Amino acid sequence: MTETIENAGRRTPLYESVANRISYLVEEGTFRPGEKIPSIRSLSHQFGVSINTIKQAYAYLEDRRVVEARPQSGYFVCARLPEVPVAPQVSKREISPTEVSLGDLSQMILRDTMNPDLLQLGISAPAMDMLPIEKLNRMISSELRRKPEQSMEYAVPPGNKRLRTQVAKRMLLAGCTLRPDEIVTTTGCMEAVFLALKVLCRPGDTVAVESPTFFNFLQLIESLGLKALEIPTSPADGISLEALEYALGQNRISACLVVSNFSNPLGSIMPDARKQEMVELLERHDVPLIEDDIHGDIAFANERPLVARSYDKEGNVLLCSSFSKTVAPGYRVGWIAPGRYQKEIEALKMAVTVASASPTQMAVGQFLANGGYERHLRKLRRESATRVARMSEAIGVYFPEGTKVTRPRGGFCLWVEMPAAVDSLKLYAEAVDSGITIAPGPIFSATGKFSNCIRLNAALWSEKIEHAIKTLGELASRQV
Amino acid sequence: MTETIENAGRRTPLYESVANRISYLVEEGTFRPGEKIPSIRSLSHQFGVSINTIKQAYAYLEDRRVVEARPQSGYFVCARLPEVPVAPQVSKREISPTEVSLGDLSQMILRDTMNPDLLQLGISAPAMDMLPIEKLNRMISSELRRKPEQSMEYAVPPGNKRLRTQVAKRMLLAGCTLRPDEIVTTTGCMEAVFLALKVLCRPGDTVAVESPTFFNFLQLIESLGLKALEIPTSPADGISLEALEYALGQNRISACLVVSNFSNPLGSIMPDARKQEMVELLERHDVPLIEDDIHGDIAFANERPLVARSYDKEGNVLLCSSFSKTVAPGYRVGWIAPGRYQKEIEALKMAVTVASASPTQMAVGQFLANGGYERHLRKLRRESATRVARMSEAIGVYFPEGTKVTRPRGGFCLWVEMPAAVDSLKLYAEAVDSGITIAPGPIFSATGKFSNCIRLNAALWSEKIEHAIKTLGELASRQV
Repeated sequence: MTETIENAGRRTPLYESVANRISYLVEEGTFRPGEKIPSIRSLSHQFGVSINTIKQAYAYLEDRRVVEARPQSGYFVCARLPEVPVAPQVSKREISPTEVSLGDLSQMILRDTMNPDLLQLGISAPAMDMLPIEKLNRMISSELRRKPEQSMEYAVPPGNKRLRTQVAKRMLLAGCTLRPDEIVTTTGCMEAVFLALKVLCRPGDTVAVESPTFFNFLQLIESLGLKALEIPTSPADGISLEALEYALGQNRISACLVVSNFSNPLGSIMPDARKQEMVELLERHDVPLIEDDIHGDIAFANERPLVARSYDKEGNVLLCSSFSKTVAPGYRVGWIAPGRYQKEIEALKMAVTVASASPTQMAVGQFLANGGYERHLRKLRRESATRVARMSEAIGVYFPEGTKVTRPRGGFCLWVEMPAAVDSLKLYAEAVDSGITIAPGPIFSATGKFSNCIRLNAALWSEKIEHAIKTLGELASRQV
Repeated sequence: MTETIENAGRRTPLYESVANRISYLVEEGTFRPGEKIPSIRSLSHQFGVSINTIKQAYAYLEDRRVVEARPQSGYFVCARLPEVPVAPQVSKREISPTEVSLGDLSQMILRDTMNPDLLQLGISAPAMDMLPIEKLNRMISSELRRKPEQSMEYAVPPGNKRLRTQVAKRMLLAGCTLRPDEIVTTTGCMEAVFLALKVLCRPGDTVAVESPTFFNFLQLIESLGLKALEIPTSPADGISLEALEYALGQNRISACLVVSNFSNPLGSIMPDARKQEMVELLERHDVPLIEDDIHGDIAFANERPLVARSYDKEGNVLLCSSFSKTVAPGYRVGWIAPGRYQKEIEALKMAVTVASASPTQMAVGQFLANGGYERHLRKLRRESATRVARMSEAIGVYFPEGTKVTRPRGGFCLWVEMPAAVDSLKLYAEAVDSGITIAPGPIFSATGKFSNCIRLNAALWSEKIEHAIKTLGELASRQV
C-alpha cells in the first residue's frame, strides 16, 4: 500500500512528496550534481517515513533523471548535463560505399599519441589508477614460476587453453554458450577484428560500419583495401537497422562490423530486441557480423549486457573482445569466437603472428580463474560511471552553449557535438599547442563527417583534467 | 719455421705427420665422430711436439673436415656425414609465378603441431633445455616491479624504446648502423614479414622466394593472395642469383623474401660478396628485399655473419628478426628495420595489432642490456652445433643408403634428401602413427617439389630422439 498525504486538496502519494523535498535539496545546491545522497536507511530515519516510501521516491527520481543508482554504491545526484546529440540524419543517397583514406590525419594522430608530454584525452584507454597493476604483475610472476616451460612455448592457435576456458565461462553472462575450442586468442581485440575482416573480405569488398565508427577500424579497412559503408548510428540505441536493411538491399556487403555494447565513440547500446533483429537481418542476407564487445564488461549497471552473438544460431557472428580496456592495454590479450569461420581464422592467425605472447595470456587466465577479475570489474564499473558523469558535467560547464554530449551507460568514451561553427581539426591543433590531444570527429568517418565533434576519454578524469576540459571549452568557444 | 721429418725418403712437415696420427685415432674409433679431442696443450705434451705444430695439424685436419673448431669449446671430431644435397636443377621454363595453395596440408600440420603427445621434430623451435627460462622469468618479474605502469601501457609503434636501442646496438655486429627509431617491434618475426609483404604487395602480385622456403612464408603469401616465384637455392650458398636475375628480367616482382643466414629449411648461408651482389641486383631492378635474419645469432662460428642489409644504401632492404629462436618462442618479441618503408610499416602495425605485448618486450630488452643475452648465445651456439652434428650423424647411420643431409653452419634445421622413391607425405603419416612429426618437403614449395625431402629440428637432439631418428630411418627404408 502506498501512503498518501493531503496537499492542497489533492491526495499526493507520500513518496512523491519525499521526492520533491529531495529535488528541492538538489536544486538549491545542498546535494551537488554527481554527489552521493544519503542511504535509503538514513533518509527513512531522517524523514520519518518507511524504507519502502524512500525506495519509491528514489525510483520516481530515477525515472526523472534527478538521481541515478550506481552498482554497489547507492544513489547519486545526476549531473546536469548538456543535451544528447541526435542520430545523424542521412539521406538514402548518402548510404553508399566509400574508399577510405585517412592518410595524413592518422599519421598525425599516431605521432601525437606517442608524445608523453601531451595529456592524452584523444586515446581510448583506461586510466592507470583504475587498473590492477600490482595484482597483475604478481600474477604474471607466479604463473611463470608455476609453469616455466609453458611461458616459453608458442601458444599456437587456438591459443592458451586456460584463458580460453575462462573466457568461455564468462561469456555465459553475455548469453553465449561457447566451448573453449570455439575461441582463438589474439594480440588484442584489433587483431581479432583484423583476422575477421581478412578472412571475410577480398580487396575492393565493402564493409558496413557504424557512423561514427572507431577510427582504427577505418585504418584497418583502408589498409586491407576495402570500402566502408557508413550506416547512421544513434547515441542511444546504436546502428540504424532501417538504414542497414536499405544498404543490404542496394549493395554487395561482405561483412558488417558493429560494437553493439557501449560503442566507440558514441557509447550507444543496442537494446536486446534490436540485437536479435540485427542478427536475423544479416543472417537473411547471408552477411557475417563482426561484433566487437570490448567494452561489454564495463557496464555501469550491475549486469553486463548480452551480446548480439547470443542470438546467433548459424555461426554467422564473429565475436571479438579483449582485456585491453579492463585489465591491461599493454598485455595485448584479446580473443575471437569466429563461429563457422574457426578453421580459417586459426590458419590465418598461424600465418600472420603464429601465436600471441604466452606470459600475458597465462596471467590474465589466472586473474579470471581466481576471481580477481570479477572483483576488479566492480570497482572499475563504479569508477568509470563516476568519471564519465564528472567529465560530462565539466563539458556542460565549460563548452560553448549548444554543445551536446552522449550519455554512455558503459565504457568511458564521451562524444561531444559542438556548435556547427566549431572545426574540430582546428581545435585539435590548438589543443595540442596547449598540451592536450583530442580525437577529432572526422577520423571517425570515411567521408569526413562530424567536423564539429570530438571524442574524449573520460577514464582520465581528475582535477587536472577538469582544467584541460576548461581549456578545450575556451578554445572551442573562440570558434563560435 | 715448420718442422719436418724424414718419411720414406720424402720430407713431410711434422704437423702433417701429427695430423695423420690423429686421423688414424679417429678412423680406428678412439675418437668418435662428434667427440671432443684433447686440447692443443695436452696433445703438445702427449706427442712431444710444439704447440705451434699441433695448431698447424689441427688447421690441416679442419681443412679436410676431419675435425672442427667450436667456439669456446675446442676441437671436435667431425661427424661422418651423409653427402650434401645439391641445389635443385631447374630449367628456366620452371621459373614462373605460382598461386599458392597449401590448404589441407597446412591444416594437417597445424593440427598435429598442437598435439602434445607427438615428438615435434617437424617444428623449428629451440629445445626447452637450451633456453634461459629461469633468467627470463626472473627478468620479467623484476622489470614489472621496476616499471609497473610501462608494463600496462600500449607500446605503440615503433614499440618499446629500450628494446629497440639494444637491437640497434647488436646489429652493429651484423654490419648495420641503425638508429633505435629505425626499428619497429613486432609480435615475432612472422608479423615483421607479414607487415613487410602487406606494405609492399597488392593481391595478385608476385614475391620471389627461395626454393625450398619456410612453409609459413608460403602460407602467408597464400593468405595475402600473392603469387610465389620459386628461385632455386643451394644448401651451401643460398639463393641462385643467376636464376633471380633471370626471373627479374622476365617478371614483375614486387618483393624478394630471403633468409641469407642459415635459411629455413636448408641452413644455407650466402657469402658476403653474394649478399652484396643480391642487394645491388634488387636495387637495380627496384625490387625491395625482405631479409629474415632470425637465425643470424645462432652461428656456430665465433662471429655472427653480416646481413644483406649491411650493403643497403637506399633503404631498400626490410630487415626482419626476432628472439623466438634464441630466447623464448612464446614471448613473441620480434622486430623489423623497414628502411624507407618506416612510415607505412608503423601505420600498418598500429592498424593491425596496435602494439605487441609490453612485458615480454621489457624482459628481452633488459636481457640484452645486462649482457645476459650474449652469455646465453655462447652456450646456445655450442649446443646447437653439437646437436646438429649428432643428429646428422644419426641420419647417416639410420636412413637408407643414398640419403643426403645439409651441413648448416648455424641454426638447427636439417634438410634431409632421401632416395627418390621415398614419399615424404607417406612418411609423415607413418611417422605420426609412430608418435613423431616431421616437416615434409612439399610444404616448402608452392609447386609440390621436394617430395623425397624432410626437414628435422636438430635442436631437440637427445638419446630419446636418436630412437626417433632410427624409427624414421626404418620407415623411410621400407619405401626404397
